[in-house]
This record gives sequence, structure tokens and C-alpha cells, in this order.
Amino acid sequence: MSTRFIVVGADAAGMSAASEARRVDPGLNIIAYDRGGYASYSQCGLPYLVGNVVSDHQRLIARSVTEFAERGIAVHLGHEVTAVDPMRHVLQVRDSQGTETEQGYDQLLLATGASPIPPVIPGLDLDGVFHLDVMEDGLAIRTYIQKYQPKRAVIIGGGYIGLEMAENLQRLGLAVALVQRGPQVFPSVDVGITVPINEELARHGVDVSMCESVVEACGGADGRVAEVQTSQGPIPADVVLVATGVRPSTALAEAAGIDLGVNGAIAVDDHQRTSAPDVFAAGDCAEHWHRLLRRPTWIPLGTTANKQGRIAGRNAAGRDDAFAGIVGTAVVRVFDLEVGRTGLTEQEARAAGLSCMVTTLDSSDHAGYLPGACALTVKLVAEQGTGRLLGGQAVGYGGVAKRIDVLATALYTDMTVDDLTQLDLAYAPPFNSVWDPIQVAATKLLRHGVTDRPGDGR
Amino acid sequence: MSTRFIVVGADAAGMSAASEARRVDPGLNIIAYDRGGYASYSQCGLPYLVGNVVSDHQRLIARSVTEFAERGIAVHLGHEVTAVDPMRHVLQVRDSQGTETEQGYDQLLLATGASPIPPVIPGLDLDGVFHLDVMEDGLAIRTYIQKYQPKRAVIIGGGYIGLEMAENLQRLGLAVALVQRGPQVFPSVDVGITVPINEELARHGVDVSMCESVVEACGGADGRVAEVQTSQGPIPADVVLVATGVRPSTALAEAAGIDLGVNGAIAVDDHQRTSAPDVFAAGDCAEHWHRLLRRPTWIPLGTTANKQGRIAGRNAAGRDDAFAGIVGTAVVRVFDLEVGRTGLTEQEARAAGLSCMVTTLDSSDHAGYLPGACALTVKLVAEQGTGRLLGGQAVGYGGVAKRIDVLATALYTDMTVDDLTQLDLAYAPPFNSVWDPIQVAATKLLRHGVTDRPGDGR
Repeated sequence: MSTRFIVVGADAAGMSAASEARRVDPGLNIIAYDRGGYASYSQCGLPYLVGNVVSDHQRLIARSVTEFAERGIAVHLGHEVTAVDPMRHVLQVRDSQGTETEQGYDQLLLATGASPIPPVIPGLDLDGVFHLDVMEDGLAIRTYIQKYQPKRAVIIGGGYIGLEMAENLQRLGLAVALVQRGPQVFPSVDVGITVPINEELARHGVDVSMCESVVEACGGADGRVAEVQTSQGPIPADVVLVATGVRPSTALAEAAGIDLGVNGAIAVDDHQRTSAPDVFAAGDCAEHWHRLLRRPTWIPLGTTANKQGRIAGRNAAGRDDAFAGIVGTAVVRVFDLEVGRTGLTEQEARAAGLSCMVTTLDSSDHAGYLPGACALTVKLVAEQGTGRLLGGQAVGYGGVAKRIDVLATALYTDMTVDDLTQLDLAYAPPFNSVWDPIQVAATKLLRHGVTDRPGDGR
Repeated sequence: MSTRFIVVGADAAGMSAASEARRVDPGLNIIAYDRGGYASYSQCGLPYLVGNVVSDHQRLIARSVTEFAERGIAVHLGHEVTAVDPMRHVLQVRDSQGTETEQGYDQLLLATGASPIPPVIPGLDLDGVFHLDVMEDGLAIRTYIQKYQPKRAVIIGGGYIGLEMAENLQRLGLAVALVQRGPQVFPSVDVGITVPINEELARHGVDVSMCESVVEACGGADGRVAEVQTSQGPIPADVVLVATGVRPSTALAEAAGIDLGVNGAIAVDDHQRTSAPDVFAAGDCAEHWHRLLRRPTWIPLGTTANKQGRIAGRNAAGRDDAFAGIVGTAVVRVFDLEVGRTGLTEQEARAAGLSCMVTTLDSSDHAGYLPGACALTVKLVAEQGTGRLLGGQAVGYGGVAKRIDVLATALYTDMTVDDLTQLDLAYAPPFNSVWDPIQVAATKLLRHGVTDRPGDGR
């Protein structure tokens, strides 16, 4: 009997692993289970599905179950794995009819992802209150909007999903209110970088309120949501999106006695191995090694899930590959504004006990004398003494992802800020200035960077 | 008397050096001479000046002579340095009235740039035949076009200037013919990457012919150019642009007995020092250390001139700084098409005796399910055996410079192709796919890269 590689969770990490394992070992018996109805689709595309930018949800699917089958990968949707017995190397699987079967494995990957943290707020079970986690959620919101033609949306939470959904709900013609519990939207960047985000949201008519907590969602006579009560009063709401964050889905691992680590994610080594023999974990349910912090973190993102899945799949198939780790890169578009980060923010660097220098540069995306050059703000964070680059953030109307990717590449190899000034980056007037904004920022940091002790800056 | 730092050539390298020397040593006596009428302007912006995308030529000037004076940097335009005596530390300077004076120096920078190679073709002295080298050239072409309203332009040479001028002359409504002596336009990239360039030129009505040499330019009755004769016949021409390349301007250095190096450029060490004591050279007149080839090369570009100038200025002012070298990055926009390169092309790698693997990937700039995703082709070159990245090229309608800059940053630290697959690059559907095209190309290279010995590829 051929070796069985069983994958639990048929999305980014799981299906990357399955595909890669197949490449390494054509003889492997590969089976993937997912309790949901869709495999291998772009979760990050869901806000654009809701906003009808993507009209056909099938377009979000990277590879169909049939295509996987053609590669000899059996994907069973609507199948929930309810228990893992690492000693016996056996899973308990329940199909959509409720029938339970046992499934033995030789190698197992847990790719169970993350799920929304349900806030403890009364009324969130009302009709018209949604999360946006899986394909089914996106389709349900779309159906609800088409059916009830809501006029006013309240979004609870100003992270990635909250911001992207503000854009997409406004695109559909809804009046959008965004309620953020903390003092800034998009807490993934330093507060100064969020100023243009607030301006962009306001410019598009999104009503943003900070330091405001939702205390209750209230239904109308029809039983559907009609209003949210916040710490600052009532807000009318025909539809509510709860986007207050996610946590790793680890119930299965926990019940199986597998070690959990940072943020409750499944603890893994650099080969994606868990504490149980022959059990791997990858993606949003697992820890993510941070190259700069040199410790595991938990930053659930599709890119990381794909990379970890690939490594796990190779190793499950007998290879000996290590995940190089993340540097904390992320980018989001909010209407026409682009916002990105990589490495550590100033706040994160200080929280990690690192002594740092920072600078912020207001620049433009390309040569200022050409029409269409647009505002671009770059913030750099570096380690005092060594000059090692710790992180970068950017916000503007173009060229953000480009600068973030250059900085992410520089962070991968522990470059210094001086190295940034020496990089041989591409220049022609339609693309850039002769010194790229990140090089101008690096130079400014070396000359005038604000340090932990003001006045000490060089 | 304070130390005198004299700069010959008041453009990118020269004025970067002057500015940086001023920062390092506020007491330095800094004087810059330039035989032209403009200092510190964007040469790379000249095609857009001709095309009237930049209407006011003053906008190309980064810093005026007055602004330099305010920083204590004396810039003398219309002053030609005619001789250097390194033994006596003295220059011969001729002003615009022809008056010759002696100027002593303690530290000297030669930043004399490059100048067009005049092809040995009869008739190129006719009215209406231009180079595009300095600001005066750009203004002269503009004036000529305004005055004579030419209908048909012939561009000789399909490098950066030729391509950018094709776009800008077409923008002005001229019918443009581009004559290229060799078998491909833009020889800075491998021939396969030029296919979309030819298509883009054709799409905009530019008549491109390859393997065609201009043998003569002929004047009309009015004494102005009317036609060029090529190896394939006559082409009507109301205006002709000669863009057949440049060579380092080293007459001054050569006459002073200063060593020349690769391509006849002034030989320099990593501190920008020449063979003469207290004489530095930087920019288009000097050699450029290539990090991948680990030898001096000559690739004249504004970005490098600025970087070398800065290093030279610091060292002239007493610091001890080294130029890190180039990796061979360049980008050009041709109408709506973007083309870029970094590191070594396949052709260059093979010419350098490197055993290499290559792959070319046809992809798109961002998530394919979003509207507006545009074609992007990426080519990677890697060293066989080590897997070290040697170079990358990209062509497409968006996102080219971004990928080139990431690859340039990766090349700076000798990353492998496997490292590329592990980079934590920014992802959100409007910006990218979950695997960036360069990572998809890297993966493809690792799996199927074409090697020197076909069949050997992994």
C-alpha cells in the first residue's frame, strides 16, 4: 500500500502541500478534507467578490477539485475531521451526511486555518450580521445585499478586512460607517501612517469613528439587524460586518495533545513539524518564524500559508526543506490609497526592546517634473548602533508595494540602512526619481534619524 | 587658506560630490566648473522635454546655481577646464570669453560625463540632425520642431534614448522611423524580451527596421536634412536623431596622464580615486565596479553617477567611504510598455563564461481575477550548480520596475533562486498574486530551468 499523506483543510496551505507532495513523490496517496464547500480559492479576493469587482465566484478558485483529482489528489469537501489520534495515526472524519469513518495516515498536515473571534456582543446572531471568512460568507453577504438592498452598513473593525470591505460596500452604493475600538485604523502600521487612510476613507464618504466599542446589535420588526449601539450612541445599520480579527483554528490539534505555541497557534519547527510524530502544520493555524525577531510569531497571511504549505508538503513526501521565515510584510489598498509595511513598525521594534532610529519622508512615486507623480510617504525603522534595517512602511497613491517589496528583500538578508543607499535600483523618469524614495529616506535616517534619546540622532 | 575641492563637470556626479563634501566639511572651499550652460539637471528627462511632457525646462533643474551658492558651492557655467596638471595641482580654465586662468586645487573630481559617439556618416552636420546629450540639445530639437514643423523623423539607434525619443516624437505628431544597425532594439536585454517592444512600437505606428545601417544623410534645397540613405534604401526625414551610443569623456584625464581602464573610462578604485594623487573621478567618465562580475565595467547611468559622486565628495572631504558597486539595473518605458533588467542577461552571463540556467515566465501584474491585470513577462538567469541568481529581465504593461528592483536588491546580496521563492513579498489582490511572478519564475527555474546542456535542467 502506498504511503498516505492526509491533509486537513483544503485551502492555501493544505493544497500547496498536496500539490508539492505530489511533485516530489508521484506514488504518494494524497487525500484532502475540508468541512467547507470550496477548495483552493483566494480568501483575499472575497471583499472584491462582495463588491462585485469579481462577479463570478468561480474565478476565485485557483484549481478545481476535478483538476486536483487529475493530479491524483482526492479532495473531499463537506468532510470535517473531528479527531486525530497521533498514536494510532488515525483520523475521525464526518461527511456531510453525518457519517463518521476512520482514516489512517502515514503523514498528516493540519492546515485548519484561522477563524473569526466572535466578539461577546449581544445581537450578533441577527440576520444581516456577517463575518467574512470563507467563500460561503462572501456569497451570503452578496445574496443578502441583493435581496434586501440595504442602504447603511456598519463595519466593526478597521483592519485589512474592515478597510477592504469599506471600499467594496461603498462601491455598491451603501453608506458605510466603520467603528474601530482602538485609537487608529489599520493597527498594523504606526499611527502616523494611518492619517492618509482616514483622509481617504473620509474622501469617499466612509464615516470612521475611533475609540468606539459596539455594545449591542439590535433587530427591527422583521428580525433583521437595524442598528448597532456603540459606546457613543446608536448607528443605523441594515447590514453589519464583524471584522474584529481571527485566531488560529486549533481545536483538533489541541484535542490531540499537540503542542500549541505563540498566540495559541500550533507550535512548529522550521520543517513545519508539530510535536506529534508525522504530523505537520502550516498556514494560519501554525506559528510563523520571524526572521527579524528570531522567534515564532503568528501573522496569518495567504502568502505565508502557501510557503509553509509547500515546505510541509515536500517534507511529508520525504524531502528535507526548511521554511526561511517571514519578515512581517503586508499591503492593503483602501480605495485609491495604498498602504504597506514590512519588518517591524516603530511600535513593534520598541515593544521588542530594540533601540531604534526612525525617519519619515514625504516624497513622490516618480520624477516630480512628470505629470502624474503622486504622493508617497516612506517611514524607515533601523537599529541604533548597528544601523541594521528593522522595518519600513509606506503610504501613498502609487508605488507603495514596490517599495515594500524592496525593503522586504533587504530585510531578508539583514541589510543596513547604508546598504539601502547603495542599492542599484531601476531609474527612468516615469518610474522613479534618480534616488528612490526609500534611498532618500535611508539617507535622511543616517543624517537626522530620530533616536530613542532625542538629540542623539545622526 | 581653506582646502580647495574643485569639481569638473557640474551634473549628477559632480554636484552630488560637491553637496556631499559640503555636508562633511562646512569649511571646504568648493568650486564647480562646467562648459555647458546648465548645472544639476535631469539628463534622463530630456526626451520628455522634447515631447513637451515637461514644458518648462527649468523643471528639470534639481538645484539652481543660486541655491548652490547659498550652500557655499560656487558653480561656474560656461567655463571649460582645458588641462589638469596633477603634479602642480593646478587646472587651466577657459571662460566663455576665452580668457584662460589657472585654478589650484587640493582635491579634484573629474566628473566630465560621457558624450555621443559621432558615427562616421556623411551629412550628419546638416541642419535638422541632432544628438540628445545635454540640455542645449533638448532645447535645440524643440526649437527646430516648433520652427519647421517637421512631419517625419528618423531615429538612428534603438537604445534608451532612441526608444524614449520614438515615443516623444510620435507624441508630437511626427511619423517616426527607427533604424537599428543590429538585429534587435534595446540590446540591453535578451532578444526574446524585445519582442513586445517591437509590437508596442508598431502599435504606435513607429516604423522599425533592424539590421539596417545609415550610410548618408542628405539635405534638401534649403540645406536642411531631407532624407537618410540606409543599406536598405532612402527614408524621408525632416528631422534626424542620432542615438548610437556614448563614450566616456576622458580627454582631460588622458592628457593629464591619468590611467584609463575598461571601455576607455577613467580607472578608479572603490573610493573613486584615480591613478593621480588627490584626483577623483565619478559618473559616466569613470569605471563602475560590477558586484556580480567582480570587475570594473562601464555602464553610464544617472543613478550610478549620483552614488559615485556622493562617495567621491565624502572622500575628497576626508571621509573614508567605498562605492558598493552596481548590479547592472536599468529600466525604460516605451509608450505604455515597461522594460527592465538587472544583473546579467543570459547573453552577458554566457559571454562572461558563466554556466547558467534560464527560464521565462508569462504572467500578469496582479491577481488575474481582478480587472486591469496586465501581461508581465519575467526572465531569470541563475548560475548552474550554485543556484545563485545572476540576473532578471521583465517586460509588460505594469509592475516591471517593481520586479526589477526586488531582483536588484536580491542580487546585491548574492541571493539564490531558492531564496527568491522564500521572500516575504507584499500581497493583496490589487497588487500581486499570492506568489509574485518572480517567485513563480524562480520556482519554474528550479523545476525546469533550461541549462547550458539541454536535458540537464532541474
